[in-house]
Amino acid sequence: MSTSLSTHPFDAALALNTTGPDRYQGQTHPAYANMVGPYGGMTAAQMLQSALQHPARLGDPVSLTVNYAAPVADGAFELEARPLRTNRSTQHWLLLMSQVGEVVASGTALLAVRRPTWSAPEAVMPDGMPAFDSLEKRPTQGFPAWISRYDMRFVCGGMGADFDGVEQPDSLTRLWLRDEPPRPLDFTSLTAACDCFAPRLWVRRHQRSPAGTVTMTVYFHADAALLAAQGERPLFGQAHAQVLHDGYCDQMGMLWSADGQLLASTQQVQYYKT
Amino acid sequence: MSTSLSTHPFDAALALNTTGPDRYQGQTHPAYANMVGPYGGMTAAQMLQSALQHPARLGDPVSLTVNYAAPVADGAFELEARPLRTNRSTQHWLLLMSQVGEVVASGTALLAVRRPTWSAPEAVMPDGMPAFDSLEKRPTQGFPAWISRYDMRFVCGGMGADFDGVEQPDSLTRLWLRDEPPRPLDFTSLTAACDCFAPRLWVRRHQRSPAGTVTMTVYFHADAALLAAQGERPLFGQAHAQVLHDGYCDQMGMLWSADGQLLASTQQVQYYKT
Repeated sequence: MSTSLSTHPFDAALALNTTGPDRYQGQTHPAYANMVGPYGGMTAAQMLQSALQHPARLGDPVSLTVNYAAPVADGAFELEARPLRTNRSTQHWLLLMSQVGEVVASGTALLAVRRPTWSAPEAVMPDGMPAFDSLEKRPTQGFPAWISRYDMRFVCGGMGADFDGVEQPDSLTRLWLRDEPPRPLDFTSLTAACDCFAPRLWVRRHQRSPAGTVTMTVYFHADAALLAAQGERPLFGQAHAQVLHDGYCDQMGMLWSADGQLLASTQQVQYYKT
Repeated sequence: MSTSLSTHPFDAALALNTTGPDRYQGQTHPAYANMVGPYGGMTAAQMLQSALQHPARLGDPVSLTVNYAAPVADGAFELEARPLRTNRSTQHWLLLMSQVGEVVASGTALLAVRRPTWSAPEAVMPDGMPAFDSLEKRPTQGFPAWISRYDMRFVCGGMGADFDGVEQPDSLTRLWLRDEPPRPLDFTSLTAACDCFAPRLWVRRHQRSPAGTVTMTVYFHADAALLAAQGERPLFGQAHAQVLHDGYCDQMGMLWSADGQLLASTQQVQYYKT
């Protein structure tokens, strides 16, 4: 893959053409291909982008929910981004991705104009984590293309090298990650990064089996300036399941800035088969 | 308030009339009134109900997201419940609540047919919690009507009696709760209960100020049989914030059965002013 300063593959994948009021067209990008179809984090980023580049946009993202309704086929897709309600400082969006006239992903987003006020962290980044530079980069060879779009360095709960089929006491993952090649953080790339965690079932059981995200929610805890301050530095991520029950499990995740500020909390449901 | 065996106020509030394909009409119910408009948990339950009573329904709820786009006025509302995509064992819904032609709440839901498979709890109910019967019932006099629709018994992080304006180290709430009068648990009442936690800001700062839910997500970890087994027994709930940042905070919550099984995990974003 070639890249220049002006055309990072993330931005190429994010490009949407306006085709009408509230309507956009985009393309899946081979650099973010998963085993079948595109990486779900990129699909979520594209859906958010359709609201962010809409002429009626008010404010910055506070929350985003994306439901993966059907496999996204490689190729073109249509996006509908409809502002359902615009208030004085908040705006609610309906987001629909379709292919050949059928919905493949649905979502909603809340944008808001934030104003500085009393703030307080509560979930602090874990103490004593090894530094990004002290850890090995996750191998990418032989994996789907999107894995190569991140420099992931696992502290625990990695994605396969040690999978021995021995059930673990929990599904905790901790890692550093940044875009590969590096790219300054923004709302869309933060969204995509929220889907970087492997299925919790794999981590818990130390073996692969069919699993995937069916719905993902992202809560944003930063404004554009705070994201810009992060620049290209790695994010620290953590995820775990609270329960795996009859084919579906939840996943609670957090992404901190290099300075230890919580930038996003994210939840998802994953289906699984054993 | 009078109630009979057949007309619990929750069921009265949940009643929706079909007005056309994918269309329903309902009414806010005074028994679930909040300070202004209805209790948000009831709004979420009504939105879920519109999909559950839809003739095209497939399966039981796996996830629900409701965005509170504008204050719901006391009185009638319209609901649109549109099945966006039906697969072999999953179904994705768009849910819109409107008043006078304007969207007041938007949402999406995922329903699925679950099949028994390998399951594992991960987040266990906290040890050593006092029993429901050993705790005082939360006073309801002088509070909005919906508070009287729950028997809440706080272990920590209560809703006001001890508010002294002294900032706390965290916003953790733990409580037992059940419907008042008692009612057998189902997907709609579990949904409503997910919104029972007070704004995290109040618990963290030990004082009230303007705050409210702007979006809530519920992940269901039970089938109808497991909910039926819970019956009218109290649920154990826990909630905390991960960060309060510039007017918005997240809230992570869990509701366990009386037997200690995680029935729902729930997240929300609350706006706040200080």
